[in-house]
Amino acid sequence: MTRKPALAVVGATGGAGAVLLQILSQHADVWGEIRLVASARSAGRKLVVRGEETEVLALGEEALDGVDVAVFLVPEQVAAQWAPVAAAKGVVVVDTSSAFRMDPDVPLVVPEVNPHAVRLRPRGIVASPHCVTLALIVAVGALHAEYGLSGLVVSTYQAVSGAGRAGVETLRAQLSLVAGTELGTGPGDVRRTVGEDTGPFAAPVALNVVPWSGEPADGGWSSEELGLREETRKVLGLPRLAVAATCVRVPVVTTHSVSVHATFENEVEVARAHEILATAPGVVLLDDPAAGEFPTPADAVGTDPAWVGRVRRSPDDPYALDLFVCGDNLRKGSALNAAQIAELAAGEFSG
Amino acid sequence: MTRKPALAVVGATGGAGAVLLQILSQHADVWGEIRLVASARSAGRKLVVRGEETEVLALGEEALDGVDVAVFLVPEQVAAQWAPVAAAKGVVVVDTSSAFRMDPDVPLVVPEVNPHAVRLRPRGIVASPHCVTLALIVAVGALHAEYGLSGLVVSTYQAVSGAGRAGVETLRAQLSLVAGTELGTGPGDVRRTVGEDTGPFAAPVALNVVPWSGEPADGGWSSEELGLREETRKVLGLPRLAVAATCVRVPVVTTHSVSVHATFENEVEVARAHEILATAPGVVLLDDPAAGEFPTPADAVGTDPAWVGRVRRSPDDPYALDLFVCGDNLRKGSALNAAQIAELAAGEFSG
Repeated sequence: MTRKPALAVVGATGGAGAVLLQILSQHADVWGEIRLVASARSAGRKLVVRGEETEVLALGEEALDGVDVAVFLVPEQVAAQWAPVAAAKGVVVVDTSSAFRMDPDVPLVVPEVNPHAVRLRPRGIVASPHCVTLALIVAVGALHAEYGLSGLVVSTYQAVSGAGRAGVETLRAQLSLVAGTELGTGPGDVRRTVGEDTGPFAAPVALNVVPWSGEPADGGWSSEELGLREETRKVLGLPRLAVAATCVRVPVVTTHSVSVHATFENEVEVARAHEILATAPGVVLLDDPAAGEFPTPADAVGTDPAWVGRVRRSPDDPYALDLFVCGDNLRKGSALNAAQIAELAAGEFSG
Repeated sequence: MTRKPALAVVGATGGAGAVLLQILSQHADVWGEIRLVASARSAGRKLVVRGEETEVLALGEEALDGVDVAVFLVPEQVAAQWAPVAAAKGVVVVDTSSAFRMDPDVPLVVPEVNPHAVRLRPRGIVASPHCVTLALIVAVGALHAEYGLSGLVVSTYQAVSGAGRAGVETLRAQLSLVAGTELGTGPGDVRRTVGEDTGPFAAPVALNVVPWSGEPADGGWSSEELGLREETRKVLGLPRLAVAATCVRVPVVTTHSVSVHATFENEVEVARAHEILATAPGVVLLDDPAAGEFPTPADAVGTDPAWVGRVRRSPDDPYALDLFVCGDNLRKGSALNAAQIAELAAGEFSG
């Protein structure tokens, strides 16, 4: 009988942790022990995974002993400190923070696109991309495999839960203030009503869209926009890919959407692109607008795949496809991709 | 003393009509008589313009007699029927509907971009572009004049009032149902709560974005997406310009936003682009994200100019600029552009 590997979930008590525990309960046969770990503040709490109440341990050396694979769902600084500690103990670390994504000795993995990269991990750490990259990369990766990607222009419609619980609470509080009013027609009326405190966003997000997400970076770009460029290049193995991204927050709770204009080395056809997307793992094609079929975040939320629709070939450029993609930022955009990477790593221990 | 020309506002009782009456009251010295016209149903109502109560006349031959310029703010079918009747009487018709926009004998005019085209009107009709085109064309036109535009990739964030009063009522009713709830995290929960009737939209618009606006057109494109392409080409006089547009409805009451990726014949520089935009008529530049300065619809609504920010040069392409533009779809996007065209035409009668 083969030994099943032991998994630690570091950051089990947060929002992504809750989603990961759900996913682990659905894939109950992969893991032996599942250990739940969080900050000292949350230690002692009990959470249910695979139907069993499990006590949360405080993050520390001991909590990582005897673990084969650890999924880190914690802020960047915590990951930067503790992932190397775990790796030094021989634990395969799957990190969902930005701490290691651009480290050349850390593979950045999307199992549908570059699964083999999991094995090339000189630091013992595997990184999972940012939720915005994950929203589009599976669909774009499938098209790249057929046509050879040469450039991307993307504009995002990012849900507030990408900014964590505070993001969701901010939108809900603002919606309570604006619903049932005539607001949204006078200059600044929304801003005056929701007040100065706009939570994790740079402007009110209810009855508004906010074309800024992340930190200021070079040339007027935001860190998220440049991050999307760097991560897409790394996952696809295209270090010179042209990527122009505009990251915009919208009043949606969960599920990021991305409007994608992709140019390729080869001429494209919508019928063939439909075939590719309809059979690509992790993608659901929903593309018949005349029949009301296109992806929206309200329909994609809570599901695993990337929902893809609005696939069109440019009338001006037979090498370009436009498409619209929706992906749940808490599932594929976070916990699910990490779980998939962890399961790839688990294969090294089992059997 | 010069005679001041007579203006008819056809469709005075609608939402765009109300905005136009405001604008006319602010530019009180341009016109002699201002005649208000609407459907027979609204005839006899009294509206205030330039501080005077004015009775609304029923649309018909008589209501157009003695008029120099008529602004039509009516549905396409009404414009298609009555604009030629008015033109046959020698009235200069400024039409805001889609009825004549692509007619080769009807100029499509944005006064900041192609004012001289007003005089070339073989049918006596001048058309005003769709609100989405108007949101971006002034900023893009100013950059084109300097650099020579070669291509556009745009994704929109369109306000619900672009779909008229029914659009606003639909969003407000849906917001009342979702505010104060935990909705937006489960598959289909928003759709189940707002019900089957999604008003003028193809899906729920509260806590959602809807990547479909317009009618089905060739190749999976929507009529609005292809219309944006055709109108931009016509206004800029670039009949072969490459334009790829994705039109998306968002839960914003008024003011369309557009994420623009523009490529040019000449190399671009952000500092020079800032100068161009800061001095372009009809544009306000707001571009210092580190200081919280970028345009949002909640801030631009109710104002006349196009608000432009997030101006960036692609790190991969020195011929490309990315920018974000917000424009009030009821002001510049409709009544204001029509008023500006009408004032250009008025110049032919005065003096």
